[in-house]
Amino acid sequence: MFPMPAEVVGYAAASLTTISFFPQAVKTLRSGDTRSISLGMYALFTSGVMLWSIYGVMVADGPVLIANLITLIPAAVVLQRKITAKHPSS
Amino acid sequence: MFPMPAEVVGYAAASLTTISFFPQAVKTLRSGDTRSISLGMYALFTSGVMLWSIYGVMVADGPVLIANLITLIPAAVVLQRKITAKHPSS
Repeated sequence: MFPMPAEVVGYAAASLTTISFFPQAVKTLRSGDTRSISLGMYALFTSGVMLWSIYGVMVADGPVLIANLITLIPAAVVLQRKITAKHPSS
Repeated sequence: MFPMPAEVVGYAAASLTTISFFPQAVKTLRSGDTRSISLGMYALFTSGVMLWSIYGVMVADGPVLIANLITLIPAAVVLQRKITAKHPSS
């Protein structure tokens, strides 16, 4: 047995948190239902991911830039659907 | 005028993505409605945040550990509510 290198744990963590938003985007696009989704969450999160991308450019950090550009896609999709939904949002 | 230091952008980004999950947890706890929330997203995201916390310990990175422990609270709350919800989940 050898201990798991920290780098492996870090990449696994980054992969999980990055891909996690895709099942939500797929579900939201398929169902069109955003009632139990928080507008505040997606407004703050999408803004944060955009700032992370800008930060990635500013400090020339490729992994930070790429991971956040990937995450931006499903986050923006859910935010757009939430904003344009007909039912009252919060 | 002076350019915004990258560090300020990074901290602003980290703050936004960390606090963003709290409005969702509050909405979910208040309404009890998790129908349009993706189980896959919260299963993957909560696992990822737990791995990020372990990574923070392994590489002795305080900000990574603290930010992820804070994020773990609302993420786990939403995941728990989704899992225990009565309606069919996906």
